[in-house]
Amino acid sequence: MAPGPTPVPEKVLLRMADTLMHHRTPQFKAVLKDVNLKLKKLFRTENPVVILASSGTGAMETSVVNLLSNGDKALVINGGKFGERFGEIARTYGIETVDYDVVWGEPADPNEIERLLKENPGIRAVYSTLAETSTGVVNDIKAIGSVVVKTEAVLVVDAISGLTADEFFPDEWNVDVVVCGSQKGLMLPPGLSFLSVSAKAQKLVERSDLPKYYFDLKEAIKAHAKDDTPWTPGISLIMGLDAVLDMLLEEGVENVVKRHAYLANLTRQAVKAMGLELVAAVPSNAVTAVKVPEGIDGGALIKKMRDEQGITIAGGQASLKGKIFRLGHLGYMDAYNTIATLAALEVVLTQLGFDVELGKGVAKAQEILVREGEQVCLSKS
Amino acid sequence: MAPGPTPVPEKVLLRMADTLMHHRTPQFKAVLKDVNLKLKKLFRTENPVVILASSGTGAMETSVVNLLSNGDKALVINGGKFGERFGEIARTYGIETVDYDVVWGEPADPNEIERLLKENPGIRAVYSTLAETSTGVVNDIKAIGSVVVKTEAVLVVDAISGLTADEFFPDEWNVDVVVCGSQKGLMLPPGLSFLSVSAKAQKLVERSDLPKYYFDLKEAIKAHAKDDTPWTPGISLIMGLDAVLDMLLEEGVENVVKRHAYLANLTRQAVKAMGLELVAAVPSNAVTAVKVPEGIDGGALIKKMRDEQGITIAGGQASLKGKIFRLGHLGYMDAYNTIATLAALEVVLTQLGFDVELGKGVAKAQEILVREGEQVCLSKS
Repeated sequence: MAPGPTPVPEKVLLRMADTLMHHRTPQFKAVLKDVNLKLKKLFRTENPVVILASSGTGAMETSVVNLLSNGDKALVINGGKFGERFGEIARTYGIETVDYDVVWGEPADPNEIERLLKENPGIRAVYSTLAETSTGVVNDIKAIGSVVVKTEAVLVVDAISGLTADEFFPDEWNVDVVVCGSQKGLMLPPGLSFLSVSAKAQKLVERSDLPKYYFDLKEAIKAHAKDDTPWTPGISLIMGLDAVLDMLLEEGVENVVKRHAYLANLTRQAVKAMGLELVAAVPSNAVTAVKVPEGIDGGALIKKMRDEQGITIAGGQASLKGKIFRLGHLGYMDAYNTIATLAALEVVLTQLGFDVELGKGVAKAQEILVREGEQVCLSKS
Repeated sequence: MAPGPTPVPEKVLLRMADTLMHHRTPQFKAVLKDVNLKLKKLFRTENPVVILASSGTGAMETSVVNLLSNGDKALVINGGKFGERFGEIARTYGIETVDYDVVWGEPADPNEIERLLKENPGIRAVYSTLAETSTGVVNDIKAIGSVVVKTEAVLVVDAISGLTADEFFPDEWNVDVVVCGSQKGLMLPPGLSFLSVSAKAQKLVERSDLPKYYFDLKEAIKAHAKDDTPWTPGISLIMGLDAVLDMLLEEGVENVVKRHAYLANLTRQAVKAMGLELVAAVPSNAVTAVKVPEGIDGGALIKKMRDEQGITIAGGQASLKGKIFRLGHLGYMDAYNTIATLAALEVVLTQLGFDVELGKGVAKAQEILVREGEQVCLSKS
């Protein structure tokens, strides 16, 4: 029940366990062609979506070393651990960053971004997260996009956690590059990452002079146009991706997002009923970050949940370590997975001495289920 | 029957299809600790072997951007497509390369390497392949190591195809960095790569000033010491790796190499009996490269093998395209897979008008099986 890696559907596990295809064959290219088309539908974009064999950080690096050139500046929105990573990568490659430090737990303010863009000429790219997994905040990408589109800069959005969970229309919202990974809303094991690349971004890719080889986006785009990859692709994961895309597109992206919104709301209502406080001012549908109550040992809470109750949730990262815990409701799970987690949470909080009425959070979730008539879940057929 | 990606054993496929663990848990760290110990045994090294989530080219890039610094030179042995890749990567990062161009099909001459090292001060690293997959040649790494160890340079060996197939003792042979991938002798899908790093190499890593982030080896070594990874690891592939390592170590590395030597010899004898000519002067046990006979269409041969006979073999790459074909005998396959391939090859060559006596190559392989008493194969239990 952590915000990724998320559970993998059984039929996807079995597809990945099928006989391995060789990747330089027309048979595999046919799979890749189909996957490439379906990825565009899931990403809701007309731009090509390239697939890399790496975890999400590799795609983040790809978006830095291929869009920027020596002397360029980058505007980085630091609202959590993953926002900060873009800045670290950019500075590694000698790029000057303009850092917009957002209070962790708050969303970025589009007006502040507009101001920073005006004050700092030479910014070629703005890096934001959709859902900042470390705090559970979702940013207003639509508003940020409407600011960035008026400038020469491109907008890069890390949607690693948010894709499929939060509303997201990259083309309508003027997002140039969407960065994603396989192990969150895509319900796959980690090992693949993704980048969609707009025409405006492709122009920057053409002129970029930062060094890269494995993560050379020009090569990846060229190969993508021929339903190929520059290096050996993650064949088994791509077969799983093919199966996942069929499941998600059959449900419909809009319904997938609705399902996540429903589970997120249920979780938030239940947690608040237990007397706990949320971290995020504007919460994502992917993950609910909750403050560890005063006097309770946050590390012990995570450990007892996992080792005694058998439920893996996530702790806080960096400055939030020990102070928050995070409940994922992302991908292949339903209301009863969440109810089980809430029940375990009540058990462990009680053991740790927090005053919670057993069954209070669970009952709140049940009330929502009673009201809705039936739970909204991904078909397990 | 291509030289990778190779077939994945069924029990490994099933292990990868098991419930996904979260990677930041003591439970996964226990797996990683065990895998790290077993990897050292398989690699026959006392040096740490780090695991990356990328295909082999990512590990090649890692060995360039972490060992070298601005102003360093690298000696690159160009004896095929994969040897050349090291040079391309180095030049991408502004490193001056000293190129030793070996005739494709010939092994590198250690005396020439010694001469080049003397003539070009400032060479910090020598890049070689163990088995050059594109030509089927195996290099004399022991002799190369005895030359490089006398200098300040480190020796980096791409063992992506050769590991488990060819004799290879990195520590005894003074190899500083072994680069490997998952989809060849390790019998896994592509998506993991590996680097072992000697103390001499770790000193270069400490001083390296080339830019890197995802492929930062210092971070990977630091995490490895704590049975961790800097970024989200390829969890499902690592579970498969755990199963593969048990299979290979139970058989014993020496026996695994012997098994490959046996299959390679059988293939070479059979191919020669069919009147065909080998490409490699000193052939690897991983792959047999064969010259396409005069007047036969190499592309058609590969295509008919795959689309009509259902057996995927590999063609030539770069300058050898259309001129050679390559038969893999690497990983999870036995003499009867090879015999089936030889039979199909005789069928297709006959269809294409080459004068071969049907059954001639097959009979040669059978003779060897008769003489040996029983076939040497990996237990499928």
